Amino acid sequence: MAVGSETSRPRVIIVGGGFAGLATANALARAPVDIVLVDRQNHHCFQPLLYQVATAALSPADIAWPIRAILSRQENLRVVMARVTAVDTEAQTVQADALTLPYDYLVLASGVTHAYFGHDEWEGAAPGLKQLEDAREIRARFLLAFERAEVAEDEAAQRRHLTFVVVGGGPTGVEMAGAMAEVAHETLRADFRRIDPRRSRIVLIEAGPRILPALPDNLSNYAKSALERMGVEVMTHTRVTDCTRNGVAVDAGAPIEASTIVWAAGVVASPAAQWIGAAHDRAGRITVNADLSVPGHPNVFAAGDLASVPNVPGIAPAAKQMGRYIGRLIASRAKGQDAPKPFHYYHAGDLAAIGRRAAVVKIGRFELTGFLGWMFWGVAHIYFLIGLRNRFVVAITWLWSWLTFRRGARLISADEE
Amino acid sequence: MAVGSETSRPRVIIVGGGFAGLATANALARAPVDIVLVDRQNHHCFQPLLYQVATAALSPADIAWPIRAILSRQENLRVVMARVTAVDTEAQTVQADALTLPYDYLVLASGVTHAYFGHDEWEGAAPGLKQLEDAREIRARFLLAFERAEVAEDEAAQRRHLTFVVVGGGPTGVEMAGAMAEVAHETLRADFRRIDPRRSRIVLIEAGPRILPALPDNLSNYAKSALERMGVEVMTHTRVTDCTRNGVAVDAGAPIEASTIVWAAGVVASPAAQWIGAAHDRAGRITVNADLSVPGHPNVFAAGDLASVPNVPGIAPAAKQMGRYIGRLIASRAKGQDAPKPFHYYHAGDLAAIGRRAAVVKIGRFELTGFLGWMFWGVAHIYFLIGLRNRFVVAITWLWSWLTFRRGARLISADEE
Repeated sequence: MAVGSETSRPRVIIVGGGFAGLATANALARAPVDIVLVDRQNHHCFQPLLYQVATAALSPADIAWPIRAILSRQENLRVVMARVTAVDTEAQTVQADALTLPYDYLVLASGVTHAYFGHDEWEGAAPGLKQLEDAREIRARFLLAFERAEVAEDEAAQRRHLTFVVVGGGPTGVEMAGAMAEVAHETLRADFRRIDPRRSRIVLIEAGPRILPALPDNLSNYAKSALERMGVEVMTHTRVTDCTRNGVAVDAGAPIEASTIVWAAGVVASPAAQWIGAAHDRAGRITVNADLSVPGHPNVFAAGDLASVPNVPGIAPAAKQMGRYIGRLIASRAKGQDAPKPFHYYHAGDLAAIGRRAAVVKIGRFELTGFLGWMFWGVAHIYFLIGLRNRFVVAITWLWSWLTFRRGARLISADEE
Repeated sequence: MAVGSETSRPRVIIVGGGFAGLATANALARAPVDIVLVDRQNHHCFQPLLYQVATAALSPADIAWPIRAILSRQENLRVVMARVTAVDTEAQTVQADALTLPYDYLVLASGVTHAYFGHDEWEGAAPGLKQLEDAREIRARFLLAFERAEVAEDEAAQRRHLTFVVVGGGPTGVEMAGAMAEVAHETLRADFRRIDPRRSRIVLIEAGPRILPALPDNLSNYAKSALERMGVEVMTHTRVTDCTRNGVAVDAGAPIEASTIVWAAGVVASPAAQWIGAAHDRAGRITVNADLSVPGHPNVFAAGDLASVPNVPGIAPAAKQMGRYIGRLIASRAKGQDAPKPFHYYHAGDLAAIGRRAAVVKIGRFELTGFLGWMFWGVAHIYFLIGLRNRFVVAITWLWSWLTFRRGARLISADEE
């Protein structure tokens, strides 16, 4: 079945309701076009706080919002919840489940998922953290490990259950490790009788020479010692060579027995490059022209984590800037105006939280660490959340957690295992 | 492996961390006993608000709390997350996964689950609402129905996706039907382009002569007309004869095509009666003595929905009263004091919310309906929630929903189907 507009306005299809897709849609709000936004999920997820769902601080709904509700007032747009399986660049159609959707402009913004450097068999043992389901799964494993340790028969099993490995020293890995240390050493301290959660071992493994490589040396060193003060073992220059349900093997040292492993190391793009037969880098990200269009397809664009643009990192502000740029470019063309200048990325800064007391922040030449950095991090994240209720609930939950050391979302879902 | 106390204090095992189990534990807080509370979930769930999770108003964590956290200060108690599979009343042990736990007193409070009157094959088509996973599942189906209607190819399919059937006219059924009508007619009204969610059909089916049979005629009639004003079709004197993924068949009238069915009709007790070979009623609830002990087993008690006590309804206040009674009785025996008088149930009242504007409340001779009833209902439920954060977040979420008609937890989990 073909579903299309009956007007003669250009039809725009946006694949993906992440930061890039939403920014494209917003930039086209007043343009004379008919937009269909396709996503296989019904919600936009604020990925920068996903680790807080995985560590039981926030609920999934606190950082997610129905895409329909975000865009319900945009009358030139409809949302379709479906999985894109193919694109026909000749016929100019997108196949989304049973629907065949025609387009004049196509914006691919379907993001990335975690990758295991050719070891897909590690996925079962070491889930990654890209969507809400992942966070719920990691939360269940993390909390269940303490439950299992409490009833474990021998000390070796107990120790394995109380060892947590995070692979990858980027912002997600650092934030995960810090939050896990906080839960083990503070939140749970009084809740068990046979084990002492404070004896948990949290190991952060990074293949490169230092964690948070996007930040300058001094901040990266600060982050390392802040994590170590929280009880996290930081292993740099260490490459994981195997992941199983019992732990990880590494190239530099003895294997680490652990029943919980979180993968925050590599990503691979969604298969959009294959849909259109486009050139892509090793991670599957589509190589784009200076105007973010796909070479050979002037009406097809790639944005966000899916686009490979030199010197542009895979972070939310970059995705938003690309989406906005593409939206404006399509709006100009639809109105018959000149195309805008090539895409230029403005790097606002980098930041990462380390537990509840510290963060590293670098905005231009401005640097912050410690508690002030943490406050800045918190305010910035609340500011970028969507919706008044979510901002309010997250702010209150953080304040409450901060005062009580408690975490409100310690739920183990029944469908785990 | 046997895990027990090494002191000579009486060992109490409580099976189930619902209202009855927690009340038993609380009543034993200062008693000279060693308690093990066993639950297969890590959290206590506030079931009276489960329908609000199922209809996307609240997050699971807003109405749930880790049992460990609730009881962490109670030093004579430990919590074990495990599934009880057997009880040996001769050896006085409980088998919970790999653990064999010895007891001197056993309190069975493992509750009930939904039952299909001998038609277990209906479960896939008509999930019930007893735990958080059920609520998440129903939420996904409910929201997905609108997504499917939006892309449906023919009008018959669209109509089927936009028809919602709730089976059972007790408080849960009434609250579900009212909340579903609210979501369809108000929350989602602007979010779709090809369908009009306000054209959804919500049908509440009750086999008996009237809904809310525990309430007097006038309140029951009020609830019926309040639901009808919200657009719910209330069918009384109607028995469901079949449930499939395409709808329900009934004894009085044509089949109803519907892709979403919620079961709120019958319950069956957890298999505790079989564990101990006790007499039970048709629903599997254990017949108990006047002191809530199980006939022939003076040191085994049944509480909450699991106990069959004449004229005591299966509601939270009754479960709490039973749990408190049993806790006090065991405390008396442990201290060598006289046994208390037989259990006496005090019925505080009945209440049910009907959407966002009305409720029916009956406390003794005091009756409330309409908006005042709704306010009373809301305050009562917030009061009985556990924890300051949850009370605060639920109150704010309700206020926000009330002002904006929005719902904060419209998430479709990816693992649906």
